[in-house]
Amino acid sequence: MEYWGVEVKTGQSLDVKLGEGKILHLSQVSCGENKNYSYEQVCAFITINGKRLVLGTLHSDKMPQLKFDLAFDRDFQLSHNWQTGSVFFHGYTAKKIASRM
Amino acid sequence: MEYWGVEVKTGQSLDVKLGEGKILHLSQVSCGENKNYSYEQVCAFITINGKRLVLGTLHSDKMPQLKFDLAFDRDFQLSHNWQTGSVFFHGYTAKKIASRM
Amino acid sequence: MEYWGVEVKTGQSLDVKLGEGKILHLSQVSCGENKNYSYEQVCAFITINGKRLVLGTLHSDKMPQLKFDLAFDRDFQLSHNWQTGSVFFHGYTAKKIASRM
Amino acid sequence: MEYWGVEVKTGQSLDVKLGEGKILHLSQVSCGENKNYSYEQVCAFITINGKRLVLGTLHSDKMPQLKFDLAFDRDFQLSHNWQTGSVFFHGYTAKKIASRM
Amino acid sequence: MEYWGVEVKTGQSLDVKLGEGKILHLSQVSCGENKNYSYEQVCAFITINGKRLVLGTLHSDKMPQLKFDLAFDRDFQLSHNWQTGSVFFHGYTAKKIASRM
Repeated sequence: MEYWGVEVKTGQSLDVKLGEGKILHLSQVSCGENKNYSYEQVCAFITINGKRLVLGTLHSDKMPQLKFDLAFDRDFQLSHNWQTGSVFFHGYTAKKIASRM
Repeated sequence: MEYWGVEVKTGQSLDVKLGEGKILHLSQVSCGENKNYSYEQVCAFITINGKRLVLGTLHSDKMPQLKFDLAFDRDFQLSHNWQTGSVFFHGYTAKKIASRM
Repeated sequence: MEYWGVEVKTGQSLDVKLGEGKILHLSQVSCGENKNYSYEQVCAFITINGKRLVLGTLHSDKMPQLKFDLAFDRDFQLSHNWQTGSVFFHGYTAKKIASRM
Repeated sequence: MEYWGVEVKTGQSLDVKLGEGKILHLSQVSCGENKNYSYEQVCAFITINGKRLVLGTLHSDKMPQLKFDLAFDRDFQLSHNWQTGSVFFHGYTAKKIASRM
Repeated sequence: MEYWGVEVKTGQSLDVKLGEGKILHLSQVSCGENKNYSYEQVCAFITINGKRLVLGTLHSDKMPQLKFDLAFDRDFQLSHNWQTGSVFFHGYTAKKIASRM
């Protein structure tokens, strides 16, 4: 297991490319430091398999982070609609083994 | 493990069919982007084994997503009662192994 | 792993009997649909090993579900004190293996 | 895996003694039934390795339980500062295996 | 698995050094006892791989702890910006095995 963390800046999206035989476990998303005391809803999006889905809705003041328990075995794209700050995604990667649960 | 995500639109239900020997881990449910600033309670339902059960109660403003830790080894149906938007379910599938914990 | 879900109606308790060599993972408890717009605290109880313990406190409006990460290898009883609706418990069962963690 | 649950009464502390080769997974802490409608912050403490640490802060009305994902391989002590009720800790024990993750 | 818990005092940072072949699972962060009844947002930071990322935003009154599901296989630094108290991080360490998920 290897820690994985990224910053997605305002107005940007981020392509997440998994190496061959890797799985990414997405553990959480967190609003950045709210220095402007903004009070905004923030949607976090994932684009995968050609579809754009809502991962979750944060609020810069009332709900500044969300926990996930999601696993990805293919490339995807992360984005958000917070106008006034970065959004951070955290998780860890691991080698894929024969798919079991 | 393979990512699984679906959108259930207003007024619709979705049949989830697992292939032979598959398990679906249901990780979360999220309200879609709340563009109309609705303030509504949203119930998410599952119909399984001939029974309709409440999975959880979201609120489009105050509680726009819920985490789950549920596993399904048979077909089921998802639905919700949000009048003004889609609801997204996320999780992952895996091959079933001899049932152990 | 096999999905497990039950409805505990107002004023009732439910005996959960595990078959030989089974473990039940209790994942969550959810208030039923709040059709009467009640605003009540709801305690969920477990009776096990001859003791009655508070599992958690829901609120029909503000906290309509709770997540758990609990595992049971023996029979127990579930109950709650919500006057105006059913409470749903969800989880999954699995075969017990030699106890390890 | 074996269910583990304890009640820690007002003003008391509880010594948790793990048998040889056991691990305790601490899953949650819950305020008892709030019959007096108290509105108080409640700190839950652990004393381990000679240090007293804050495990978490509950509120008898607004945040009556917390989830944990903690594992202990040695004896420790639990306590809390709620003046008007018991606090319940829940989890499960398992045999220790060669430490891996 | 071995319990791991630290206190990070006001204005200080803490270097976390993992021994060879160890993984640290970070399970939660908790504000210390709020004896001054402060009402402040508290950011918890991690510095890893030369980048400083926001782990999460607590609030000494409304959100005094956060749960994580993060795993680290290298040294990192923890800090926070709470002016009036300590912040506690809890988790557990384990031996690293061949990376799989």
